Amino acid sequence: MKSGTPLSGWKDRVLFTPGPLTTSRPVKQAMLRDLGSRDHEFIAVVHDVRRRLVALGQTTQKQYTAIPMQGSGTFALEAVVSSVVPPDGKLMVVINGAYGRRIARIASVLGIETIAVEFPENCCVDVEEVQRQLDAHGNVALLAVVHCETTTGIINPIEPIGAAANAAGAKYFVDAMSSFGAIPISLPGCHIDYLVSSANKCIEGVPGFAFVLARLASLKDTNGYACSLSLDLYDQWAGLERNGQFRFTPPTHAILAFHQALLELETEGGVAGRAARYQANYETLVAGMRHMGFTEYLAPQDQGYIITSFRYPDDPAFDFERFYDALNARGYVIYPGKVTDADCFRIGNIGRIFESDVQDLLGAVKDVVQECGIKLKPQEAGARQ
Amino acid sequence: MKSGTPLSGWKDRVLFTPGPLTTSRPVKQAMLRDLGSRDHEFIAVVHDVRRRLVALGQTTQKQYTAIPMQGSGTFALEAVVSSVVPPDGKLMVVINGAYGRRIARIASVLGIETIAVEFPENCCVDVEEVQRQLDAHGNVALLAVVHCETTTGIINPIEPIGAAANAAGAKYFVDAMSSFGAIPISLPGCHIDYLVSSANKCIEGVPGFAFVLARLASLKDTNGYACSLSLDLYDQWAGLERNGQFRFTPPTHAILAFHQALLELETEGGVAGRAARYQANYETLVAGMRHMGFTEYLAPQDQGYIITSFRYPDDPAFDFERFYDALNARGYVIYPGKVTDADCFRIGNIGRIFESDVQDLLGAVKDVVQECGIKLKPQEAGARQ
Repeated sequence: MKSGTPLSGWKDRVLFTPGPLTTSRPVKQAMLRDLGSRDHEFIAVVHDVRRRLVALGQTTQKQYTAIPMQGSGTFALEAVVSSVVPPDGKLMVVINGAYGRRIARIASVLGIETIAVEFPENCCVDVEEVQRQLDAHGNVALLAVVHCETTTGIINPIEPIGAAANAAGAKYFVDAMSSFGAIPISLPGCHIDYLVSSANKCIEGVPGFAFVLARLASLKDTNGYACSLSLDLYDQWAGLERNGQFRFTPPTHAILAFHQALLELETEGGVAGRAARYQANYETLVAGMRHMGFTEYLAPQDQGYIITSFRYPDDPAFDFERFYDALNARGYVIYPGKVTDADCFRIGNIGRIFESDVQDLLGAVKDVVQECGIKLKPQEAGARQ
Repeated sequence: MKSGTPLSGWKDRVLFTPGPLTTSRPVKQAMLRDLGSRDHEFIAVVHDVRRRLVALGQTTQKQYTAIPMQGSGTFALEAVVSSVVPPDGKLMVVINGAYGRRIARIASVLGIETIAVEFPENCCVDVEEVQRQLDAHGNVALLAVVHCETTTGIINPIEPIGAAANAAGAKYFVDAMSSFGAIPISLPGCHIDYLVSSANKCIEGVPGFAFVLARLASLKDTNGYACSLSLDLYDQWAGLERNGQFRFTPPTHAILAFHQALLELETEGGVAGRAARYQANYETLVAGMRHMGFTEYLAPQDQGYIITSFRYPDDPAFDFERFYDALNARGYVIYPGKVTDADCFRIGNIGRIFESDVQDLLGAVKDVVQECGIKLKPQEAGARQ
């Protein structure tokens, strides 16, 4: 079968990516409607979405608010960076991957003074070093960190970093793009002032918007800071509070899908239930890949269950494009790597996929390895290089 | 039936709004798929969407390019304003409604020097006055105008305004949000450098992104002008040209829907075919409303067939909220007014609606007028106040 053509039959390829993800049929079917963006029915849906998002952050609407923002996750990141740092305020970004660098790049384009605190991509953030940098620089307005660095799949310790930011008097911004909904996060417990995630990640909606969870006491001080109309976070919030409507046309269908996705998250047992499924996907994947002789980029103690980077096999017969296309032709979409110092590919465990899908993928990988004549060194169970 | 609850049966309310609009069932069904945003199949769809958009502008991909941008139409307007005016360059905005004012507001937030050339909301733009203002100010980098001012439904003369901009050496930017796809526009013929429209307007897709049609020779000079990462028009174009992919997660489902909508536009006979249907909707609507005694805000020669503003009846029994809710309960969504100097409501003629839908709406309006006891002065056929 040629790549780029639909698979025969009704079933789409399964997406083992960081998103857009495979979503449930009812999530997509929720989009078979056209609602007016200023009509009562849609406004009620937006209200319920915002309420449920705040609850997922283990807090209340008295303390926090949810602000959906049109565009991709990066648009919501830029909305925060451009809207909450006061004029002449400094941003500190903790970086151990491409998404930390992206926050720094946004700030650079916006002309915001930025201190980058960098760690190697295969290392978890060292909280003591962040603490030292906060002390050394003083007067940091906003400290930003990525929770699950999708570059590698590493999970950064957002709670102690938040405590350090809080102690230093800095507001705290967590990019939880690929973790929110699948890893429990207490907004107040982690001292979070702003958190960003996206519709098409672990809540399993479709792409079209992202959202910011903001501490009201912090947000209320930011009126007039924004240097963009579209991405003005305060103004977006004030508009939603005024009449329940977006200031500018919302992606009505994507929001209907997201509402259905939130209901399904609840049915699955909330964040704990979803975490259990993703964890099982992860364990099945890693056990199977190791058994064939693939090795992960990260040490197991740093590796989250969201997405895993695997090193290219040490065999010239391995060609990533060919590997990708052969899996694609069998109905599985994996993802290229993004780390800077090693050749890797990535396999995600998130979206509407189950252990059986992971088993199917592992079977396909095994076929492709044989077909391409890739030599791997299978490891004994439990052993790691 | 209570407002805010779904209608019984399978059919949603018909949207007589400026968008999001009623779309065809196949357009929505195209969203029942999850494609990887970096996978071959999706890249091929994006390529075809971009090709078709350029062709709708009556030009070629050698001269112009189509750049989809995540977010609502306003996001794409801001992408143009923030990305193509050189540092210290001046913007001139021709204004006769809220959407012209919005472009000026975007520029104001961005700190761009802006000359507003204002006309009353019920008057078409006076090209000679624009010409005089261009001469008086000299050195205008970008001249912006709204084609169909959705505030009223007025159609501005974009061809002669473009000729004036061109003669003055200014780049020319047309906000064709609610006209592109339904009113023929030749990009080169109108001297257009940048045109913005949205997925959920006359091409009859769903909301989630907008698009810019840009003259390549102009766009290529703008590298580095942008003051935003997300809304950087040049960078978005360069990314798409590099590998066919969006820089940041695209709304994959909305783009699949839009592709289907473009195929349906072709089937309908392209822009001419769609224009004919909307024109028929408009004529049926206005004849019926006049017959009941409603009057339009604009003079007929300025009124386009996209959306019509009607004045509130001169009777205290008319209450817009009650009128809206009563139509809503019957399955029809109309739109509030937006002109500053008169009380109006608006009815759109665009989207997947036909003369029979307009007839149904007229029947419902008649019912509601009777139910509310609103006194109108029916006009004779052909007569106007």
